[in-house]
Amino acid sequence: MNPSQHQLVDSLRARFGAGIAETDPQMLAPWLADWRGRFQGATPAMLSPSSLEEVQAVLAQAGAFAVPLVPQGGNTSMVGGATPPADGSAVILSLRRMNRIRSISPEDSLAIAEAGVILADFHDAAGAIGRRFPLDLGSRGSATIGGLASTNAGGTQVLRWGTMRALVAGVEAVLPDGSVHDGLSALKKDNRGYDLNQLLIGAEGTLGVITAATLRLVPAVATRAVAWAAMESPDQALSLLRRIERQTDAVESFEIMPAEALASVLAHIPGTRAPVDAKHRWHVLIEAVATDAGDRAPEDLLADLLRQPLEAGLVGDAVVSASEAQAEAFWRIRHGISESERARGAAVQHDISAPVDAMPRFMREAGAAIEARFAGTQAVAYGHLGDGNVHFHVRAPVAADRGHWYASEAPAITRAVHDLVVQAGGSISAEHGIGQMKRDELERLGPASRVATLRAIKRALDPAVLLNPGKLVTLARRLDRS
Amino acid sequence: MNPSQHQLVDSLRARFGAGIAETDPQMLAPWLADWRGRFQGATPAMLSPSSLEEVQAVLAQAGAFAVPLVPQGGNTSMVGGATPPADGSAVILSLRRMNRIRSISPEDSLAIAEAGVILADFHDAAGAIGRRFPLDLGSRGSATIGGLASTNAGGTQVLRWGTMRALVAGVEAVLPDGSVHDGLSALKKDNRGYDLNQLLIGAEGTLGVITAATLRLVPAVATRAVAWAAMESPDQALSLLRRIERQTDAVESFEIMPAEALASVLAHIPGTRAPVDAKHRWHVLIEAVATDAGDRAPEDLLADLLRQPLEAGLVGDAVVSASEAQAEAFWRIRHGISESERARGAAVQHDISAPVDAMPRFMREAGAAIEARFAGTQAVAYGHLGDGNVHFHVRAPVAADRGHWYASEAPAITRAVHDLVVQAGGSISAEHGIGQMKRDELERLGPASRVATLRAIKRALDPAVLLNPGKLVTLARRLDRS
Repeated sequence: MNPSQHQLVDSLRARFGAGIAETDPQMLAPWLADWRGRFQGATPAMLSPSSLEEVQAVLAQAGAFAVPLVPQGGNTSMVGGATPPADGSAVILSLRRMNRIRSISPEDSLAIAEAGVILADFHDAAGAIGRRFPLDLGSRGSATIGGLASTNAGGTQVLRWGTMRALVAGVEAVLPDGSVHDGLSALKKDNRGYDLNQLLIGAEGTLGVITAATLRLVPAVATRAVAWAAMESPDQALSLLRRIERQTDAVESFEIMPAEALASVLAHIPGTRAPVDAKHRWHVLIEAVATDAGDRAPEDLLADLLRQPLEAGLVGDAVVSASEAQAEAFWRIRHGISESERARGAAVQHDISAPVDAMPRFMREAGAAIEARFAGTQAVAYGHLGDGNVHFHVRAPVAADRGHWYASEAPAITRAVHDLVVQAGGSISAEHGIGQMKRDELERLGPASRVATLRAIKRALDPAVLLNPGKLVTLARRLDRS
Repeated sequence: MNPSQHQLVDSLRARFGAGIAETDPQMLAPWLADWRGRFQGATPAMLSPSSLEEVQAVLAQAGAFAVPLVPQGGNTSMVGGATPPADGSAVILSLRRMNRIRSISPEDSLAIAEAGVILADFHDAAGAIGRRFPLDLGSRGSATIGGLASTNAGGTQVLRWGTMRALVAGVEAVLPDGSVHDGLSALKKDNRGYDLNQLLIGAEGTLGVITAATLRLVPAVATRAVAWAAMESPDQALSLLRRIERQTDAVESFEIMPAEALASVLAHIPGTRAPVDAKHRWHVLIEAVATDAGDRAPEDLLADLLRQPLEAGLVGDAVVSASEAQAEAFWRIRHGISESERARGAAVQHDISAPVDAMPRFMREAGAAIEARFAGTQAVAYGHLGDGNVHFHVRAPVAADRGHWYASEAPAITRAVHDLVVQAGGSISAEHGIGQMKRDELERLGPASRVATLRAIKRALDPAVLLNPGKLVTLARRLDRS
């Protein structure tokens, strides 16, 4: 611990008790590496305030002693966004003890949850009042409201309900100078200048520390059904989606995968079997829900929605789940892709998006372009077609040495994939953010005016680089150049 | 024209022809005062670029010659937001010649409209492809897409569709240094740092000049019906709204007015008559729509929605329009309030919001508080209850001298109303923005950390104060103080 860090820890302990700072290396260890184990950080201390006032004090004191802070929730970042720098210069600011649900009401369908509330717990709280928080993802048992808001998280229900940006109605945050941005009041109309709530959502903790959020709740799901439909191209899948969108808003998921990915799941995940003939080249999973006893039964709705496309030949084959167990079985295939891909061997993954209408062409052309340029690789794209967001995996050649391939080939492949994404008008980070993993790619692909603007905002609100140093945009780099 | 302005005009004319700059005082006159005639500005020139490249050149040259620019669309600001400073130091940058609809598609329900497209024309364009742009307001024949986006405009359909912030899927803007922010690609997922689109929406042209926007379209209205319901309190009106929201999403408007406002309309607007017995203390107008032949008939839906509340005594009396003419007649009452209030005499108006659940209490208590403090005044609140947004009028005492009252009493009343709004957790600008009219009140009520943050962002992106000087936040003032 350097002298400044010592001063910070001592001053906070003197005021709030020893428990506010954890310095035992064994206790710190789980919070130093990222979710996928790609980034290893170091820190002598983790600060765990349990109230807004304590967070204010942490920021004010950290500013006074010039100790950078790395805000952290469930530490489930996919891009090293919550991992402290490896040189030990920063301390972790954990929000996990700020975990109260301050209010939750079925009347106005709003809740105020503190940053440390875990997503799964919040799902339960919403369910307990007959409502639902419609954002879900694999890390629900660890991810926190603060982290989800700070990274504008997405998940599997974005098609109908949007990302966190659409679900957060208000934000409370502590700014780098220790002052509070109180934006929790869920005003439907508020035109008092720049929208600071929206600026903090997705800022990855680089502009302020989100301490609580007002969240929208939606009607609970009464029943659901899942359809599986097979076709020959992503273009046909998009046509099907557009037809469905014109007829209903009860569809909450529309997921696409190639036969290749389905085959991989069937081969590697025990107990899975193909819902329809696996000979078709592309497959989609469609979930529809009923939220009210008066709503149409989702299985009837899906059957109706698929009848004409089947007759017209747009869809080659389709089934609708007849039970919750069958619905689960269909989802198990979709959720099994990532595991089955890992079982197959080395691959490099990309979290990318494009305008929805441009995605089928991207899926057709980008895969072919990568395979042509990097001999022996195989590209597999699957995911949220309705959001214009796919996981784009590039598998290593069968004979490749894993370690060597990751070090020597993967970076060039990633740059090539990102170049294709930019050409398609898309984003090199659909869901995961920039963190440290994509920082150089953001810098490379900009465009330059965008990066300059991000940097100007960072410099304006956190000139001392107190918050999450080295993530998203760096200031030191700019100073070096100018 | 000062020498810098001369250089700017000459350089742009040399490059793009004489027509890019208007300097004839008669032609400039209509664009120098605001919509309500409260602010009178002056300028020697209005620049009217017709392409993105020309806007870039205007900003680059204006920066080079240090001539401030006042971006202007339809000049319909209610807060003097598009009026040039009175000292003639700035020139107007009119976006009205950038008025192409670059693309519009029923497939993905998106359109790209340039900043100068007039709202009414855009409504027509959406209608021509069987869709609808669900934002409407009184100035539809003048207001432009760029102005609507720059001020995060609302209107009468916010309840279901949200403000411009929810309807704008992408933004193209020229930044103060002449570089382009190209955010038109309507990505549903994009986590590459701070959301610059959202930052520019509602920024009142102080951070960049919006040149085009990608806009969401929704299904066209097939049929509509309007209900009129009477009750005894705003609390009952909110209970009714909450019941309705749980049962349908087909309701697009929920407007409230006191008996006092209804009586004023009946007395001053020819051809109006009370839909129900005017003895009830509060009245609401509810519009429901069907967008598809398969949807429930809106008149049946409204009748069903009101049956139980009538039986339970929540609603004292209610009728549902039996024809489009009757629906129009109900709306004429609502739209007549503003005119009838003007006919009654002097009043000071406020565009304010509060959390929806807090609004009934605000309506009850704030009116009484103002009337008690300012003897002889009468407070009337009406408008968009479902958005937590009402027009709050305070009428002058009957015997008051109009001019004297506006000068001596109105400012104190406005400050008192704003204090009550802040206490209720609300906003002193729900729809109209800050402009120059509310700038001092924003400064007064802050909170200070909010104003400091707005100012830091302004300074970061437009350090030379090239864009819309004197609006929203001032930089000179801060420099004076520090």
